Amino acid sequence: MHGSQPLDTNPHRRLNLLTGEWVLVSPHRTKRPWQGKIEDLPQDNRPAYDPKCYLCPTNTRADGETNPDYQESFVFKNDFSALLEDTPNESYNQKDLLVAQTERGICKVISFSPKHHLTLPELSVAEISKVIDLWQHEFKSLSGHPWIKYIQIFENKGEIMGCSNPHPHGQIWAQSELPVEIIKESERQKAYLDKHQTSLLSDYLNLELEKQERIIFENDAFVVLVPFWAVWPYETMIISKRHVQNLLAFDEQEKLLLAEALKVVTTKYDNLFETSFPYSAGMHQAPVNSGDHPEWHWHMHFYPPLLRSATVKKFMVGYEMLANPQRDITPEYAAARLKELSTEHYKNKTL
Amino acid sequence: MHGSQPLDTNPHRRLNLLTGEWVLVSPHRTKRPWQGKIEDLPQDNRPAYDPKCYLCPTNTRADGETNPDYQESFVFKNDFSALLEDTPNESYNQKDLLVAQTERGICKVISFSPKHHLTLPELSVAEISKVIDLWQHEFKSLSGHPWIKYIQIFENKGEIMGCSNPHPHGQIWAQSELPVEIIKESERQKAYLDKHQTSLLSDYLNLELEKQERIIFENDAFVVLVPFWAVWPYETMIISKRHVQNLLAFDEQEKLLLAEALKVVTTKYDNLFETSFPYSAGMHQAPVNSGDHPEWHWHMHFYPPLLRSATVKKFMVGYEMLANPQRDITPEYAAARLKELSTEHYKNKTL
Ligand SMILES: O=P(O)(O)O[C@H]1O[C@H](CO)[C@@H](O)[C@H](O)[C@H]1O
Ligand SMILES: O=P(O)(O)O[C@H]1O[C@H](CO)[C@@H](O)[C@H](O)[C@H]1O
Repeated sequence: MHGSQPLDTNPHRRLNLLTGEWVLVSPHRTKRPWQGKIEDLPQDNRPAYDPKCYLCPTNTRADGETNPDYQESFVFKNDFSALLEDTPNESYNQKDLLVAQTERGICKVISFSPKHHLTLPELSVAEISKVIDLWQHEFKSLSGHPWIKYIQIFENKGEIMGCSNPHPHGQIWAQSELPVEIIKESERQKAYLDKHQTSLLSDYLNLELEKQERIIFENDAFVVLVPFWAVWPYETMIISKRHVQNLLAFDEQEKLLLAEALKVVTTKYDNLFETSFPYSAGMHQAPVNSGDHPEWHWHMHFYPPLLRSATVKKFMVGYEMLANPQRDITPEYAAARLKELSTEHYKNKTL
Repeated sequence: MHGSQPLDTNPHRRLNLLTGEWVLVSPHRTKRPWQGKIEDLPQDNRPAYDPKCYLCPTNTRADGETNPDYQESFVFKNDFSALLEDTPNESYNQKDLLVAQTERGICKVISFSPKHHLTLPELSVAEISKVIDLWQHEFKSLSGHPWIKYIQIFENKGEIMGCSNPHPHGQIWAQSELPVEIIKESERQKAYLDKHQTSLLSDYLNLELEKQERIIFENDAFVVLVPFWAVWPYETMIISKRHVQNLLAFDEQEKLLLAEALKVVTTKYDNLFETSFPYSAGMHQAPVNSGDHPEWHWHMHFYPPLLRSATVKKFMVGYEMLANPQRDITPEYAAARLKELSTEHYKNKTL
């Protein structure tokens, strides 16, 4: 593969440096006509306050508690937590064939804003920065429990990403064991650090900045790019320029710059198909309460499902579930499209 | 964990023997109210012949070819193949950070029946057995290409599984490299065989047959069960009682018994929510043209997304994509529900 646009025509696979797994890329496949499922467009005329929303200020939640009249952001324990704090420690093993063990955890919900009708790209950089403050605060207090080993901060946005409430919010699941994706990324980053004495993502970032083929946005502290091994059509990553293990390392200036990067990527997403762009996004960072993790380099993944339009998504189904992730457009094409989009939200456009 | 129903109340994780990865189980979490996305019910009044369907007999396809007036099943090369036979062999490597290589393959489509309005559970055991004949025939002829290393036979059923045509059909993707899921299952099965001199799935099957907690159906040659480590709410596996590497080993009698198992599991699925049950399903079997694979034990996975009803599915999103697969009902609960369902298709019920 060579020429000015390598990898842009032939079916090929690419190595995901963070997991060691491959993704199959079929650049020619977008010609396929789509006769399949057309998603409903989500409603986009929400009121600033919804009396039936369990995240709006002053409303009562499932557990009977009343939300405060909060002005910025607000966090509480998930009323339907997947993990519980008081689960007893038990294990089950039948001939090494049926193997299970209990797991403890704490699940929280973070409302990003009192305003029911807004989403992350519609908040100001200062407002997003307040959300980052809260993430830092929660990360710190959750890691105060010595039994907690990993803290997953994430957001499901949009109905098609299983989000059951359009009020802008994210979640934090903190738990006593390492999740599978974290184990993979730990191993790969550790192997790289052991071999090269540098951070895998620092070296990767430097090469991407040199090439400028997949970079979407950059400021003094963060880069937004489409990873070389992206699986989802418009998948992106935010990577910190500094090699830090978790978000507690970010100072006030860096928090504003992260807020800017978050606003830029989510605004470009909304502008791509002029719709409130659905995604699941979340930070990956070092495990806690388990020694040093110099191999870890903070980053954030965005996994958005839309492929062709606001209503046609990529399905990760038969072949992808049973065999191997597969994508239809190249990461370079996706990066070029995202790069050229305005950082002004389409809803603010004056005609 | 002990008592008559172990693992049925506490959040816990279970080990997937075939991949070495864990699934998080949150048995208490079904109490959560669902305010999120409600899927559209798929149309279920199709004609037996649709002049616009590219799979119906005598119709013309995208590439201009005309389908024969076939009476049983019919196979052709996918007009929008993700993998191509004539891709040149090239690789790309920038400092071991950007790593890619071309991949060759052949993608085929198999129509299960000339009848546009039917689905697998609505075919007779004899008709399904003809589909298995064709799978055997294709597996054999594709493995005749010495460069093909793995053959994935699968079906995406239903709009929400990305199926773009309701005509009953499946696909085969054959390729020059091993997909990631196959690499995982190869490693785990090989490690088990090396250690125990028996097949992982034979030993697992024997234990499941002894316990009878997750078995849904059994005949002389196949068992249908909910695996102990199921991720999807009503996920199942068909496992052959004989330890065979691939479906070419099945004789006429076994093919009829596999057809029966397929009819039973898909009929029970349809009966669960009285809807044409969506799923992705596919066989896992030994790689081809790469020596012996005594570790491999033929099996078939069914990954169905529905959780609560015909219109509410499980979303594998934020936490699941970024951290770890997670499920809300126990595999034992799912197995008990599927087991008690009739093997008579709900559409045939007389009142
Ligand atoms: O080949 P089809 O049916 O057009 O497409 C479907 O199955 C493929 C294989 O699982 C997926 O890659 C596609 O996303 C899905 O829509
Ligand atoms: O917690 P929520 O928003 O009710 O639920 C959503 O996010 C969870 C975490 O990714 C998933 O397990 C659920 O399937 C999804 O619907």
